[in-house]
Amino acid sequence: MSRVLWINPIGTSKFDDAVRAELERVKRPDTEVEVRSLQRGPQHLEYHAYEAWVVPDLLTAVIEAEREGFDAAVIGCFYDTGLRAAREVATRIAVAAPCESALHIASTLGDSFSVLVGRRKWVPEMRDNVARYGYRDRLASFKVVDLGVHDFQVDPDLTRKRLVAAAREAVDSDGAEVVVLGCTIEYGFFSDLQAEIGAPVVDATVAPFKYAELLADLAGLGWRPSKVGGYATPPSGELEAFGLARQLATAASKEAATTSFGR
Amino acid sequence: MSRVLWINPIGTSKFDDAVRAELERVKRPDTEVEVRSLQRGPQHLEYHAYEAWVVPDLLTAVIEAEREGFDAAVIGCFYDTGLRAAREVATRIAVAAPCESALHIASTLGDSFSVLVGRRKWVPEMRDNVARYGYRDRLASFKVVDLGVHDFQVDPDLTRKRLVAAAREAVDSDGAEVVVLGCTIEYGFFSDLQAEIGAPVVDATVAPFKYAELLADLAGLGWRPSKVGGYATPPSGELEAFGLARQLATAASKEAATTSFGR
Amino acid sequence: MSRVLWINPIGTSKFDDAVRAELERVKRPDTEVEVRSLQRGPQHLEYHAYEAWVVPDLLTAVIEAEREGFDAAVIGCFYDTGLRAAREVATRIAVAAPCESALHIASTLGDSFSVLVGRRKWVPEMRDNVARYGYRDRLASFKVVDLGVHDFQVDPDLTRKRLVAAAREAVDSDGAEVVVLGCTIEYGFFSDLQAEIGAPVVDATVAPFKYAELLADLAGLGWRPSKVGGYATPPSGELEAFGLARQLATAASKEAATTSFGR
Amino acid sequence: MSRVLWINPIGTSKFDDAVRAELERVKRPDTEVEVRSLQRGPQHLEYHAYEAWVVPDLLTAVIEAEREGFDAAVIGCFYDTGLRAAREVATRIAVAAPCESALHIASTLGDSFSVLVGRRKWVPEMRDNVARYGYRDRLASFKVVDLGVHDFQVDPDLTRKRLVAAAREAVDSDGAEVVVLGCTIEYGFFSDLQAEIGAPVVDATVAPFKYAELLADLAGLGWRPSKVGGYATPPSGELEAFGLARQLATAASKEAATTSFGR
Amino acid sequence: MSRVLWINPIGTSKFDDAVRAELERVKRPDTEVEVRSLQRGPQHLEYHAYEAWVVPDLLTAVIEAEREGFDAAVIGCFYDTGLRAAREVATRIAVAAPCESALHIASTLGDSFSVLVGRRKWVPEMRDNVARYGYRDRLASFKVVDLGVHDFQVDPDLTRKRLVAAAREAVDSDGAEVVVLGCTIEYGFFSDLQAEIGAPVVDATVAPFKYAELLADLAGLGWRPSKVGGYATPPSGELEAFGLARQLATAASKEAATTSFGR
Amino acid sequence: MSRVLWINPIGTSKFDDAVRAELERVKRPDTEVEVRSLQRGPQHLEYHAYEAWVVPDLLTAVIEAEREGFDAAVIGCFYDTGLRAAREVATRIAVAAPCESALHIASTLGDSFSVLVGRRKWVPEMRDNVARYGYRDRLASFKVVDLGVHDFQVDPDLTRKRLVAAAREAVDSDGAEVVVLGCTIEYGFFSDLQAEIGAPVVDATVAPFKYAELLADLAGLGWRPSKVGGYATPPSGELEAFGLARQLATAASKEAATTSFGR
Repeated sequence: MSRVLWINPIGTSKFDDAVRAELERVKRPDTEVEVRSLQRGPQHLEYHAYEAWVVPDLLTAVIEAEREGFDAAVIGCFYDTGLRAAREVATRIAVAAPCESALHIASTLGDSFSVLVGRRKWVPEMRDNVARYGYRDRLASFKVVDLGVHDFQVDPDLTRKRLVAAAREAVDSDGAEVVVLGCTIEYGFFSDLQAEIGAPVVDATVAPFKYAELLADLAGLGWRPSKVGGYATPPSGELEAFGLARQLATAASKEAATTSFGR
Repeated sequence: MSRVLWINPIGTSKFDDAVRAELERVKRPDTEVEVRSLQRGPQHLEYHAYEAWVVPDLLTAVIEAEREGFDAAVIGCFYDTGLRAAREVATRIAVAAPCESALHIASTLGDSFSVLVGRRKWVPEMRDNVARYGYRDRLASFKVVDLGVHDFQVDPDLTRKRLVAAAREAVDSDGAEVVVLGCTIEYGFFSDLQAEIGAPVVDATVAPFKYAELLADLAGLGWRPSKVGGYATPPSGELEAFGLARQLATAASKEAATTSFGR
Repeated sequence: MSRVLWINPIGTSKFDDAVRAELERVKRPDTEVEVRSLQRGPQHLEYHAYEAWVVPDLLTAVIEAEREGFDAAVIGCFYDTGLRAAREVATRIAVAAPCESALHIASTLGDSFSVLVGRRKWVPEMRDNVARYGYRDRLASFKVVDLGVHDFQVDPDLTRKRLVAAAREAVDSDGAEVVVLGCTIEYGFFSDLQAEIGAPVVDATVAPFKYAELLADLAGLGWRPSKVGGYATPPSGELEAFGLARQLATAASKEAATTSFGR
Repeated sequence: MSRVLWINPIGTSKFDDAVRAELERVKRPDTEVEVRSLQRGPQHLEYHAYEAWVVPDLLTAVIEAEREGFDAAVIGCFYDTGLRAAREVATRIAVAAPCESALHIASTLGDSFSVLVGRRKWVPEMRDNVARYGYRDRLASFKVVDLGVHDFQVDPDLTRKRLVAAAREAVDSDGAEVVVLGCTIEYGFFSDLQAEIGAPVVDATVAPFKYAELLADLAGLGWRPSKVGGYATPPSGELEAFGLARQLATAASKEAATTSFGR
Repeated sequence: MSRVLWINPIGTSKFDDAVRAELERVKRPDTEVEVRSLQRGPQHLEYHAYEAWVVPDLLTAVIEAEREGFDAAVIGCFYDTGLRAAREVATRIAVAAPCESALHIASTLGDSFSVLVGRRKWVPEMRDNVARYGYRDRLASFKVVDLGVHDFQVDPDLTRKRLVAAAREAVDSDGAEVVVLGCTIEYGFFSDLQAEIGAPVVDATVAPFKYAELLADLAGLGWRPSKVGGYATPPSGELEAFGLARQLATAASKEAATTSFGR
Repeated sequence: MSRVLWINPIGTSKFDDAVRAELERVKRPDTEVEVRSLQRGPQHLEYHAYEAWVVPDLLTAVIEAEREGFDAAVIGCFYDTGLRAAREVATRIAVAAPCESALHIASTLGDSFSVLVGRRKWVPEMRDNVARYGYRDRLASFKVVDLGVHDFQVDPDLTRKRLVAAAREAVDSDGAEVVVLGCTIEYGFFSDLQAEIGAPVVDATVAPFKYAELLADLAGLGWRPSKVGGYATPPSGELEAFGLARQLATAASKEAATTSFGR
């Protein structure tokens, strides 16, 4: 049995119910799912400054989740915002993120993949992540569908049409064998898409969630982020001294205690 | 519920029981484990010619497993012998392999890793695989412990001693944050090892098995090897025409039918 | 004439005077230097969570500096913390950072370089940056001198001794032709060091400052971060709507108005 | 004087005469050419499972050739099927393969090259080989002409037309300076092709054959595959014990003795 | 105050005045600019043999400049012709070159860049340089405008039109965020160009000149090419013994003395 | 029958006889060997400025050789000095060079190699070449034996001792499976060396010579450097106009006519 927390690292609970519904559909029978978003902050993370503004609260949410006994947390943004720091502050809880998980999975399904993103703006940071994760040579292309995060679910038919067109081009012209959806809010389309194009389409919501279930299992074997180097956790005394523990308390966990995180 | 078949791709059932015991210990409650080895062939795969000689029977075993309704098969050799061809011939069953799985997992646990292998002989092919999987820049080192496949379980104290020494050097001198055991027959040591060195030690038997459980789940979502390119499956008529179907029948599956595969 | 702001992105002004003194020594005659630190936050950024916690205030400081008419800002941490987001929110001001600047310079001085860091902990993020900047093949080694950020200036003789020893090893054993100091608080040592080892030693404080002077000049030619892609600036209306403008006001700039930023 | 054996690693002698004719045309005066195919197995190797099925017999053929006093053997498939294992089992005979040889040669003729293949299916394994051989950055493109192995020689005019069109596009649009034919059965076209497009076209049959002549010479200088690591040869006793020597005898060499290998 | 020498490494002073005018416009107030060309040699360097023929005289010019007290020299060809050797023979003077400088600058302005060159011929050597400098993964494309070095300034409207078209395609279709002009004789266009396409356009004349100003400053801090390895300077006795010092005298500097270098 | 010219690109014929003797020993029966050096210039090419100074005369020698009907020329320096320009000016003659040839050969003999060089000074340019040729990931190490070009043949016992020690370390500690001698003047040692260390040792004189024989054969098939891009040959009219043809005549070929080139 695993308890997995999905964190939408944005200041709106707008997508929480839909994401939870998706995850309930694909979870193992004995996994318990919870979805939370932040108490404040931007409504999407298309800009890197927005990412920056949510990371402190995101880290608080991860620490909080660890204290509450969750086995894994998922960072719900395809930029994998704050993943390094989250694995640093976590001492027991597993942390998964969409890009890393989706690429690991995609790499077992085909030689090369394309990522379908909303805006050209997103490409540079994502391409850096693709490279950092080791998949630069497997990247067939980024395809931009010209939709913002908040557009994907507004007119599903339009979104589907654009995703299908982009996926087809990826497979037919760019040599992709696998398609990866490059935003967690592109949820709900992958099944139709892969039926239509005849190639696997890895979903940015399902992939990290299933990976989180795996990582939670593995944490039980002692396979948790190594603390000998980059993921070494800050000394707790220092957190106090720097007022960060208090900030955490104020900014996120205490609020969470009174208002209940997310929904 | 998933049924996972572990294949020791060697002509001896010597390690089957021990591997099964390891897997039983780490499987999900609702996973069913079976372990098989081949009816013929070399007793280990340290040489690439030996790998070559077992792949036809290994592929037969994978096809057989698919027909028997297994959800996933694991290729039990850290060379990931025959992985590409296995994903090609499989149409429904998921296929996992040690090196790929272990590196995916290790990459979520730390910045860089060392692989503990038995012989220098093994390094070139494994290093090529590390590079193909995208992890060349994460590879801290290969450490050779000078033990053959059949030596690892003969004197567990000696093996443990050598593995600890090599792992220590990897972490202290080579900058590894994670240690990967580079042979499936190095089973049974990872828990002690990671306790002793204070860094995660990814086991070559447990890692692909847990990954196989994941891939089996994902196959249910339609995330199976893409058939638009490199993993396209041979046309069945051609298999007949070339006599490969019959060869399969003779060489492996029919034998398997009479003598029972594996144990 | 250029006005350059050095930002120590930590919640202490402890190093401000010394850094200013260093910069005054190396600035062009017509450059105006100012050094600021943050009103709150951790005293150093060795942990990635600390980095995360300071970035919002750091971005506020950059925006603030742009409004105040500075031509360039330097992010005073060798992790190049928040560089991508800073170039995103900046529309006119140039932003430089230590690792990027130091490596650009080092690459003109020799074939390969070593980076002298305080802790092993720092290596993974820095190595990722080295790779992102394109210098992975030029990296001879990271050398760890086992000193924390706050240790470097406590006992200068000890620090010098350790830096000399590490630099020597880098040049003599690791093949480095150039040495890079991997922390801005390693200031004050490079001249002695390079005299002693007979190879250039690039300082993490001087390098980005001189680079900032260059980038300020170039901005005058219209060579500012491209807004067609990854560095596109958030729409100001959205900043308002998301309460980030206000958060900025509260967290940083307004405070800064009353208490004076930095010193 | 060198004796070179070309092995068509497929269960048909259909192409043997034509290949021999090609090689006779380009061989050094004092080279002796022989062409053989296998006694059984698939008629082409477009599928990786087919590759797998032929490798044991291919290795047998190489060992056999070494015993018969050949100086070099060529593996007649652009996947370079079994090359690593062939160099492992060989102790005296040199082994060449089309992709490796063609890329070495192409790299001396121009900055970048395109490979003309029959099917998209072939690309992933070949691209992995291109990368392993070090030429990923020199690869301009793979061009797919939509012809199977057995189609190339059926309607030479159609084949020529498609190859010319693909080669033109490679040179004019993809930036290729050199064209490489990515299948040994694309023999007979390179001269016309290079005359027509005005750039060198490296043939997959001629290239490895000429390279084999070179490697045979070099073997005479002691430049044979290094036995200190990955190419270490299996101990002969072990081959006996594992029944592989006998399998060899049955599967290939004895048959070869009675029926004469190849034609 | 810095004295910077721009060297047009060709046997014509045709472009000297125009280049000087460009540099005067962008130099720091206290920089002194001089422009020289060679006494003999080809009129452009599109061919690598031409590059080869000018390097001895170019090196002589650099040594000469060092003796005359210049602080920096710029090699005025986007191939960065002779850069390695120039840094080798220089002991005090800083040496900058267009491609290296432009890419360093471009990399601070955006994720990826395209280089606008005159001829396809130029691409291979330039791409090798891009790779050597570490920017292969940042290279969006080379765009060929089909103009020779001597064509760029003949019909500025035609040149502008072609550069705009190529730059637009680079930004709109190839994903470039920054455009780099790949020939020093493409001077005079970058301001218009960047206004028109809305993305920074790095000029091959301005970039290395501004970089030279920086490098001159840095040389004052002791940051000169490292002499412990690849940039070690030939022993002066040897230069005499080999007659190179005399050749220098004859071929270039003495001539320069009588006829005055450059203009 | 092939006529191959070995060019020692230095201003001394000191090594010509010994090199010719080596080549005579390894040539094909029907190959004709000639060895030449330059009429002027430095006695070795350890410095890049020396390389620069000889390239014009080297190119003249290549053009001359083409006119005289040689089938191939070898550039006798492991820096592969002037190789790009030589292939540019050549229209019929094949050009080989030591580093490129030796690495192509070494890559067929083992997974990784070490290069034994005289001075640390040589490493950066050679490492850049190794990377350009695609072998960076196959490079185990450079080993410096602290001997200059002119030292290698002075005390053969000392040289042999140092080379053996370095080769041993390469194989035993650095993981090299193959050793490459990184200077043409390290001739005469490879046979003893490989006997002693038990791994192939690729000689920098023999390797490019044998490769030249191959390339000469291939040129006969039309496989000559592609003239569609980087190797396009300068128009002959332009050579006249720029006075380079005359320079050639003066500097090298005419002199050669009267004094006989080389010996």
